[in-house]
Amino acid sequence: MKTVVLFLISSFLLTSCTVENQSSNKIDPLPSWNQTSTKLSIINYVEDITNTESENFIAIEDRIATFDNDGTLWAEKSLPFQIYFIFDRIKEMAKNDESLKTTEPYMYAINGDIKSLMKFGMEGVLQMAVKAQSGNTGDEFDDMVKEWIKTAKHPETGKLFTEMKYQPMMELIKYLEANEFKVFIVSGGTRDFMRSFLSEIYGIPEYRIIGSRLKVVYNEETRKIDRLPELEFNNDKEAKPAAIYSAIGKIPVIVAGNSDGDFQMMQYAEASGKPFLNILVNHTDAKREYNYNSNPKQETHVECLKTALKNKWTVVDMKKDWKVVYPFEMK
Amino acid sequence: MKTVVLFLISSFLLTSCTVENQSSNKIDPLPSWNQTSTKLSIINYVEDITNTESENFIAIEDRIATFDNDGTLWAEKSLPFQIYFIFDRIKEMAKNDESLKTTEPYMYAINGDIKSLMKFGMEGVLQMAVKAQSGNTGDEFDDMVKEWIKTAKHPETGKLFTEMKYQPMMELIKYLEANEFKVFIVSGGTRDFMRSFLSEIYGIPEYRIIGSRLKVVYNEETRKIDRLPELEFNNDKEAKPAAIYSAIGKIPVIVAGNSDGDFQMMQYAEASGKPFLNILVNHTDAKREYNYNSNPKQETHVECLKTALKNKWTVVDMKKDWKVVYPFEMK
Repeated sequence: MKTVVLFLISSFLLTSCTVENQSSNKIDPLPSWNQTSTKLSIINYVEDITNTESENFIAIEDRIATFDNDGTLWAEKSLPFQIYFIFDRIKEMAKNDESLKTTEPYMYAINGDIKSLMKFGMEGVLQMAVKAQSGNTGDEFDDMVKEWIKTAKHPETGKLFTEMKYQPMMELIKYLEANEFKVFIVSGGTRDFMRSFLSEIYGIPEYRIIGSRLKVVYNEETRKIDRLPELEFNNDKEAKPAAIYSAIGKIPVIVAGNSDGDFQMMQYAEASGKPFLNILVNHTDAKREYNYNSNPKQETHVECLKTALKNKWTVVDMKKDWKVVYPFEMK
Repeated sequence: MKTVVLFLISSFLLTSCTVENQSSNKIDPLPSWNQTSTKLSIINYVEDITNTESENFIAIEDRIATFDNDGTLWAEKSLPFQIYFIFDRIKEMAKNDESLKTTEPYMYAINGDIKSLMKFGMEGVLQMAVKAQSGNTGDEFDDMVKEWIKTAKHPETGKLFTEMKYQPMMELIKYLEANEFKVFIVSGGTRDFMRSFLSEIYGIPEYRIIGSRLKVVYNEETRKIDRLPELEFNNDKEAKPAAIYSAIGKIPVIVAGNSDGDFQMMQYAEASGKPFLNILVNHTDAKREYNYNSNPKQETHVECLKTALKNKWTVVDMKKDWKVVYPFEMK
């Protein structure tokens, strides 16, 4: 007990001291983060591995960071935001295809019967995702998403979905890029949906956005990309390290996520033998965002959180660690 | 006839004039290129689309260039260099697996009987490529390639394969990157073979190297990538624009290639509606490299060359346009 108290006190002193000193010398790179040990562990890691004198120094070409998207870079409740897009697309498609109104599971999306829809589980969601996003060209799909995201609002906050990105995580991306990291998004969301607008709002180029994907082919007649009704890759759990190997060719040294879907990529980084930083965003703030821990049985972060605590990964306590959640809260 | 002569004279004057003027003001970005209209067309394009005053100005985020590898960035005769690696791997594997010595088509690779091997066509090559590159982890494969490339020499020139990159193309990559292009390799060679060493010798990060690929999975027990004996994607011809859409999410504005395998990605760029530059490397130099035009029936660049000439794409005449071919020719 004594040891724990001493440790906490010394951690606190160390935290205040280091962060204070730093702010007197240079601009705080993470102004929306409170001065807690979480912020300290991130800054310490980055300062250590970019220090050529340190035994932990990591060369620029190996500074690869992979970030989950839903629940890590923007909110994901009550449903991941792409689901709202899929529902809206199915409703739109039903205008030209009446049969959708009487066909499962599409009919439930059309009449907003989420409960019936849930009976189809992930299978049903994927089936709908494929239907809603195929049968068009790359350009057509891109236009659809861009048009939708311009005005689509969150049903609970009334904010544009794009306003619900996490300010502290935007600062973290900027901070890492300033330290010559290449930040990639590695998400379960579909790649081409994300690329249509996240590149602009996060400042990450399209080619560094990796996700689930439909099969696409090049049409030599039209010289366009045709999007086929076939799920080629579902980028979740153990698929994520495989996607990272395929798209990046290196093991990330920083991984950020918020659920068991990100667990494998964190384990992949941990096993690399390099100094690594795994960041688990723990949703603890029922007031400003959501508290996933109030009903853990319905959530999918329990395993990852358990290991994160055990292995001393960096766990972000949203309520305690973040001064603001969304950019619109800033003065 | 007169018009042609006048055009040639004025082109010549324009060429000398512009390139001379330029060299008096700044360092020549392409010193291994002769002062011909080919060099001029490349420099003119880059200066035009990076000029904010020009109606052809292209924003930095859209400056995407895709380069084929074999025959475009390094030589590919008598056989694409990766084939030598595959042969050497099969020979190595035969030490532990005697059956390969009596099994088609592997036995022909082992005893160097290319003629018999050729009867199996592309199918046979792919079958051997899969065999030679699977059944290991990502790290193990990477180590194998790195070890091999250190000493592997070209059977005709006696040079290391890595010494047979094209000096003028290396300068072109540097020039484009200096003008804030992102250069990607989009090759029929396998992605993971190329990534093992080309990143270092070309200065292009691994994640910008796209190629054919075997299926890979993440092994949760070992926390490593397992490479399976299955060809997942053969990155040639019409597959290339699909690979570009998937990996980059944008249509390139510069495409460089040397064969009909690059034709579709050139057509893709041409159809984009943006100012584009298609560069076809025409192998015309039997003395310093190879002359593909002496026996066009055995070659695969004829269709692409025909269209390139017709559509006024930029055709590189190796013999006339390049001062040196390989870096080792430089004084």
